[in-house]
Amino acid sequence: MQALLFDGQLRLANDYPAPSLAPGEALIRPSLVGICNTDIEITRGYMGFRGVLGHEFVGVVQECEDRAWVGRRVVGEINAACRRCAVCARGDESHCPERTTLGIDRRDGAMAALFSLPISCLHEVPASVPDQAAVFTEPLAAALEILQQSHLRPTDRVAVVGDGKLGLLCAQVLRLPGCEVVVIGRHPERWQLLHELGIATAPTESVVSGQLPVVAHNGQRTMDKGQFDVVVDCTGQPAGLATARSLVRPRGRLVLKSTFAAESGLNLSRLVVDEVQLLGSRCGPFAPALRLLERDLIKVQPLIAGQFALSRGLDAFAAASRRLKMLLEISHVD
Amino acid sequence: MQALLFDGQLRLANDYPAPSLAPGEALIRPSLVGICNTDIEITRGYMGFRGVLGHEFVGVVQECEDRAWVGRRVVGEINAACRRCAVCARGDESHCPERTTLGIDRRDGAMAALFSLPISCLHEVPASVPDQAAVFTEPLAAALEILQQSHLRPTDRVAVVGDGKLGLLCAQVLRLPGCEVVVIGRHPERWQLLHELGIATAPTESVVSGQLPVVAHNGQRTMDKGQFDVVVDCTGQPAGLATARSLVRPRGRLVLKSTFAAESGLNLSRLVVDEVQLLGSRCGPFAPALRLLERDLIKVQPLIAGQFALSRGLDAFAAASRRLKMLLEISHVD
Repeated sequence: MQALLFDGQLRLANDYPAPSLAPGEALIRPSLVGICNTDIEITRGYMGFRGVLGHEFVGVVQECEDRAWVGRRVVGEINAACRRCAVCARGDESHCPERTTLGIDRRDGAMAALFSLPISCLHEVPASVPDQAAVFTEPLAAALEILQQSHLRPTDRVAVVGDGKLGLLCAQVLRLPGCEVVVIGRHPERWQLLHELGIATAPTESVVSGQLPVVAHNGQRTMDKGQFDVVVDCTGQPAGLATARSLVRPRGRLVLKSTFAAESGLNLSRLVVDEVQLLGSRCGPFAPALRLLERDLIKVQPLIAGQFALSRGLDAFAAASRRLKMLLEISHVD
Repeated sequence: MQALLFDGQLRLANDYPAPSLAPGEALIRPSLVGICNTDIEITRGYMGFRGVLGHEFVGVVQECEDRAWVGRRVVGEINAACRRCAVCARGDESHCPERTTLGIDRRDGAMAALFSLPISCLHEVPASVPDQAAVFTEPLAAALEILQQSHLRPTDRVAVVGDGKLGLLCAQVLRLPGCEVVVIGRHPERWQLLHELGIATAPTESVVSGQLPVVAHNGQRTMDKGQFDVVVDCTGQPAGLATARSLVRPRGRLVLKSTFAAESGLNLSRLVVDEVQLLGSRCGPFAPALRLLERDLIKVQPLIAGQFALSRGLDAFAAASRRLKMLLEISHVD
């Protein structure tokens, strides 16, 4: 079968062996697969992964022991847990030490004609949610994990640092409880969407001074730096984390949504002095993400930068860097 | 001036003395005033209040020491605090023991040609929010107080008992973090709106059995009773509270949004055994409520049952009982 894989280099294979049905798993024919920054990091050596890429997908179940799943349109949680250990027993399956992760860690991903995932990871997509929205379920769930982990009060002043794919999703989620939200970023061409959604913006380079020039749908104003109750770093860059840290008020919360290899340079003593809470945040709940898409509370269409056929996967990756969401379309001839 | 007041009976006065400007206050010409269940309770003796009714309003500032406010369209928090005591100093102004409350406790309300409120209570209404939405700011803020007080997780299963005005607003707020929401009520004619918003419903009389027949936009199913993580009682009735209590899971939360005079009959020992958290909830934050209206995340138009001129205030009250929101329109001839 056709598959886009990383074996030391990114490569399109036309003769990759198709997976066979494993106990408790389902074989899925993906329709759309998103390219995530993590995929790009993997092609640079992140996780030491070798195999088929892709963990953001929507597709149709082709084969499965439980016949009720066959033919259903699904999205899937990416962590395949052992479901036997103590970590799984307490419900933290996405932290199972034995887990494999779709297209990221010891499990072939979705950028192929066919792939396999445990049935327990699957969620049926409501009929009213189109493929181009459903493919955002995984990153939207990751954004929603902030609300799952932490009490965001409607009166909280929130900053999201980074106006990439994840930053735009996090900002949309954090506006829902009524919070004031400011996105700090480098891509003014993406801010129109935010303003229309009642989210304000400020340029990253403005964070150096004590006053932040903030633009919203209803005009401009300045905000004091260091006054945010909650700051979410979605930049994946040490410099972005430093920017995020500088915006948190004493006793505020700093949420880390992205990973990076370099040293952070974060001053932990200052965290103690300022009593700042640091919160790592990764995968999130799928069912509420699907409910938000079904309720049309999250706008994903403006986040799509382009769509390529799987056979043009190399072009898609080349075009994806520093862009919004690039999608791979996988056509199936019956 | 014309005013709708309660002095032992509900009465329309045409010669009520107009308020004069007090230090730190603003004189406001209301445009629309909502009739709340509390207003109806007051006409039955609740709070022992005597004076002009009305605490849900949108209007225009006519006179004020700080000239910058004059001419602005505003809504207002209803608790006028002393701003000097220890309670106010810690930021709990809506709990100030010296507070007066607009149209509820020792302060004439908004169902008149003119009324007075401290400047510190005022919030300007964004231009994009029409009067008919802005007049819902106060009850919407009260619904939002649930998110302010308590961590609602996107995976929480939520029941709202009561499909009156407040129940419909609470359900709309609680759907925003992605929670599954079921409204339990007696008015099937109001459920279409809920289904369109991705909120499920079940009839109150069905709660007696162990299985709840739940209807949503995508069909019917049954849910186990006593499995809800969070249950909000918006009925204002002892029987409603009993229904709500029966839906809470062990270690779940029961939020009380309405008051009633009668004995509740709530078994406190069972609360201990089941480790259920009981949470009283009243007024909420205005700024986030205005942000949600501006972001068009709350649908208020379907909640309006009718609109009467202030001169027909008695008819409006007669028509308001057990109906959705009845509005009073106050016209001003310059």
